[in-house]
Amino acid sequence: MKIEAILDKSEKCSSIFENAIRDLEIPTCKAFLKSGKLAPINFKQASHEIENKDTPKVNKAFPHSYGASKNKALEADSPNEKPLKGKRVAVLFSGGPAAGGHNVIVGIKKILGKNNTLLGIKAGPKGLIEGNLFEITDSDVEGIVNTGGFDFLGSDRTKIKTDEQFAQVKRTCNDYKLDAIVVIGGDDSNTNAAVLAEYLFTNVMPDGSGVQVIGVPKTIDGDLQIGDFLPISFGFDTATKIYAEMVGNILQDTPSSRKYWHFVKLMGRAASHVALEVALQTKPAITLISEEVAEKKLALHEIVDSIAKSVVDRASRGINHGVVVIPEGLIEFIPEMTALLKELNERMAEFKSILDAKSFDEKKDYIYTKLTAKHAQLMASLPDYIEQMLLADRDSHGNLQVSLIPTERLLIDMTATRVKEIDPSVKFNTLNHFFGYEGRCGAPTLFDAAYTYNLGLTVGSLILAGKTGYIACITNLDKGGKPVALPLTGLLNIERRHGHDEMVIEKALVRTDSPAFKYFASRRKDWVNSDVFCSPGPRQLWGPASKQLPISVALNRDYSAVEFKF
Amino acid sequence: MKIEAILDKSEKCSSIFENAIRDLEIPTCKAFLKSGKLAPINFKQASHEIENKDTPKVNKAFPHSYGASKNKALEADSPNEKPLKGKRVAVLFSGGPAAGGHNVIVGIKKILGKNNTLLGIKAGPKGLIEGNLFEITDSDVEGIVNTGGFDFLGSDRTKIKTDEQFAQVKRTCNDYKLDAIVVIGGDDSNTNAAVLAEYLFTNVMPDGSGVQVIGVPKTIDGDLQIGDFLPISFGFDTATKIYAEMVGNILQDTPSSRKYWHFVKLMGRAASHVALEVALQTKPAITLISEEVAEKKLALHEIVDSIAKSVVDRASRGINHGVVVIPEGLIEFIPEMTALLKELNERMAEFKSILDAKSFDEKKDYIYTKLTAKHAQLMASLPDYIEQMLLADRDSHGNLQVSLIPTERLLIDMTATRVKEIDPSVKFNTLNHFFGYEGRCGAPTLFDAAYTYNLGLTVGSLILAGKTGYIACITNLDKGGKPVALPLTGLLNIERRHGHDEMVIEKALVRTDSPAFKYFASRRKDWVNSDVFCSPGPRQLWGPASKQLPISVALNRDYSAVEFKF
Repeated sequence: MKIEAILDKSEKCSSIFENAIRDLEIPTCKAFLKSGKLAPINFKQASHEIENKDTPKVNKAFPHSYGASKNKALEADSPNEKPLKGKRVAVLFSGGPAAGGHNVIVGIKKILGKNNTLLGIKAGPKGLIEGNLFEITDSDVEGIVNTGGFDFLGSDRTKIKTDEQFAQVKRTCNDYKLDAIVVIGGDDSNTNAAVLAEYLFTNVMPDGSGVQVIGVPKTIDGDLQIGDFLPISFGFDTATKIYAEMVGNILQDTPSSRKYWHFVKLMGRAASHVALEVALQTKPAITLISEEVAEKKLALHEIVDSIAKSVVDRASRGINHGVVVIPEGLIEFIPEMTALLKELNERMAEFKSILDAKSFDEKKDYIYTKLTAKHAQLMASLPDYIEQMLLADRDSHGNLQVSLIPTERLLIDMTATRVKEIDPSVKFNTLNHFFGYEGRCGAPTLFDAAYTYNLGLTVGSLILAGKTGYIACITNLDKGGKPVALPLTGLLNIERRHGHDEMVIEKALVRTDSPAFKYFASRRKDWVNSDVFCSPGPRQLWGPASKQLPISVALNRDYSAVEFKF
Repeated sequence: MKIEAILDKSEKCSSIFENAIRDLEIPTCKAFLKSGKLAPINFKQASHEIENKDTPKVNKAFPHSYGASKNKALEADSPNEKPLKGKRVAVLFSGGPAAGGHNVIVGIKKILGKNNTLLGIKAGPKGLIEGNLFEITDSDVEGIVNTGGFDFLGSDRTKIKTDEQFAQVKRTCNDYKLDAIVVIGGDDSNTNAAVLAEYLFTNVMPDGSGVQVIGVPKTIDGDLQIGDFLPISFGFDTATKIYAEMVGNILQDTPSSRKYWHFVKLMGRAASHVALEVALQTKPAITLISEEVAEKKLALHEIVDSIAKSVVDRASRGINHGVVVIPEGLIEFIPEMTALLKELNERMAEFKSILDAKSFDEKKDYIYTKLTAKHAQLMASLPDYIEQMLLADRDSHGNLQVSLIPTERLLIDMTATRVKEIDPSVKFNTLNHFFGYEGRCGAPTLFDAAYTYNLGLTVGSLILAGKTGYIACITNLDKGGKPVALPLTGLLNIERRHGHDEMVIEKALVRTDSPAFKYFASRRKDWVNSDVFCSPGPRQLWGPASKQLPISVALNRDYSAVEFKF
């Protein structure tokens, strides 16, 4: 075949690599294998009850779900000898994409088998409301297995909350005669799944029956995790390995070209799991962890001062290069910055009509007179372009889009000034990067591919066992993998949002008393003092380096190896 | 072993992946195997003479080198039964890093064997001038094999040109009793190697003998290539696969999130080989090729108009997303832009004393009165921040650092304006990226690892056969690989640089009549009309997807497969 013909055939996700991964065998937990063949499993209630301080209130709000689950986790039992038949199951993606989403669908489809029907909901929760569904075929599944992205269904961020939306969902359930809905999403989407499960528990169909709802833990941010039961959300491993390879490449570049400090911002606004994992994978000179900044109540100038001192210190050892890793959400974890932003938002709302009539410079002068002294001082210490952003127009809620602040540039500029103050002879050439979108849709690592496929098998098993209101999980990742399910109600907390209490799944932040953080904290002094970086390399789907787990997961779960074993 | 202990051991480039690649077997050309063991080869002159229009003048300037080579290529001959012994060879990296550099050293070391000595020159040509050398050991080589980066030696961009510098190089040769120098670098560095080879041809040592100089073709830009003899420089495959994976990930993200146009700028200022290769690997909606822009004398507004029309056109088919790939050097290939920049540089130099006294706004008003009408019009059409950059201070040569112009932002802003003019209802949300440093120091692809190792074997063989003034090459990449060497003098052209004629290796640009470009041009209409993207995935060092060659190389060399075979 001529090259041109080979190339024509490679279009539509059919490169040599993409074709090869479709033939890759996916490691499967023993629980799902009966005489070497795939089979759904039964579940039994574990003794352990999932609860938190708000559980009593939540239980009252979710009487059906709590009544059925008693907030007890489910564990894999024997194979399900009498799985339900004729089930019609619909699956959707919610929120930003994460690697492995397609394999969840593959797993569900395989375990549902010929006796049941799987439908895809197009373009996220909105598709469920609008009734945009289609039947997923075996050949669809052959096409998407092990591939990255959410493009098979598409996704969106619609939150189902109004009475009308719920009614529309009910209509879709009836129109398509659905028995179950699978929500693949993050903390907010699984909160939505909990609400849907309760709402659809009964009286959806003309015969009075309900529709089961099962959630699947997705998010590259890694902030949906619940101890040993839910060691990590899917997509985290792939995203962090992609970012870690890029950071590793840049680290390898620094002593090669010997002239730059690279400031790398990594996606992940709420939690710093991504930054911490990338730090453990690559050992950059400096990694900032938002949660630590908040806990120690560090001021911006203290962070800058610490970076600047490290720059000067390395320079004294002849190292005029380095890498600084910054979590996307850092600014929001610096107490004085959030206080300044809060005061600014309030003052700008208070004096809106006066400010609207002013030029930028007049506006600035005016606002400065309205700020408390310490906030005025802080704002004056920021580079001009940040000052300009802080005074920019607010969104419809009167808030500033903090994510637009270029934290990496802010830190570079302030560090440059500080380095010059400490020692003007120190060379400080910089480059900045932001890695985000690159990490959401790459082909899954072997771990994420296997993890999501087995999550799909768990989801299908839960549905064929008649369960609803659970999130599917795989635990014991280093010891064969064990399917479990957690009652969604047990995960709900009461949080103050937009001025009123909401029951939501709490985001899991980095804990500074966790083994992963403690290991990082114990080693970082050596990382800044010398160049001991390493790199996980490009994700390997074959060969001796293909089974690596996220290091932070292995540390936090006290595994004895950093390789997964299904 | 506890995880913590595993992690401690992973520092200093010893991750699971990094350790595994050190054990990877490297494909070796048959020519270097004698009864299964590595052995240096002899070379014979090919009939083909390497020449160009300037060759007669170059030959006169390089009497020794030309006298010896007659500008004829060298081909692999039988194994070298009597290789020279006791040789002292020194190797250096020059210019930006590229994946595989370490394996060139490994190849040289292996073929030199126990009877010769290999020295490393620290930190590039500067280290050769300053005499910063050390002996490379077998254990050094075990540590760097198959790893990315140039950090083992470091690199710099010093050009050896003054009499004093040449004298210092001679001193280093004497101090370290060197018999040969290996220059691993791009077009400029190999030009330098040609000059060094001539200068060191004879009378370097007290006994009147000279020092051999061999060049190795490195550059991620791919602009050092010479037809079938030198199909590609090393590092290009790794860099383009890294960028292509990132672009592929983003492509996969677009129909998943369904809301963004991503404008991706890729490293490579002089030539668009990188952009073209990434386009062939991934099939984005739009890829700009600088050489085509220059050839068609496209105006900036024509480029913008074409992108805007594609955006509107896709929107009419319900596709509100896409990816635009932009070569870093684009601006310098738009004839009207270079003309504007030239005139601006001249006027700003001419009126420097007047302008220096003015405020920015005054300066701007003044310059506009001095520009020709069409250039004034063009400048006025650019966004304010670009206008500001164009009027910024010049470097010491009176030039603007064109590389600082954020081409991707410029195109986004101008396209947004144009889209709004054509159809205000079209959604055009954008994100921009620049991939550069990420691609220079990643672990080499299996191709770059094998290619550079075999280049190293070729270099060592050339030295042990007493050759000087050649660049080492491997050709027939799809048919076992064939070591060859090209006389550096044959590659030199006369170019006008900094106001006078210089003999330099010409950069190989993308040819719009090349098979690779023609294939791209024949398919791009389909790529913009629909979503048929694909991705090479992460670089695989093991398994069925590990042997892929750059597609542009396979097309241009008329290979029958896109896999290499050594």
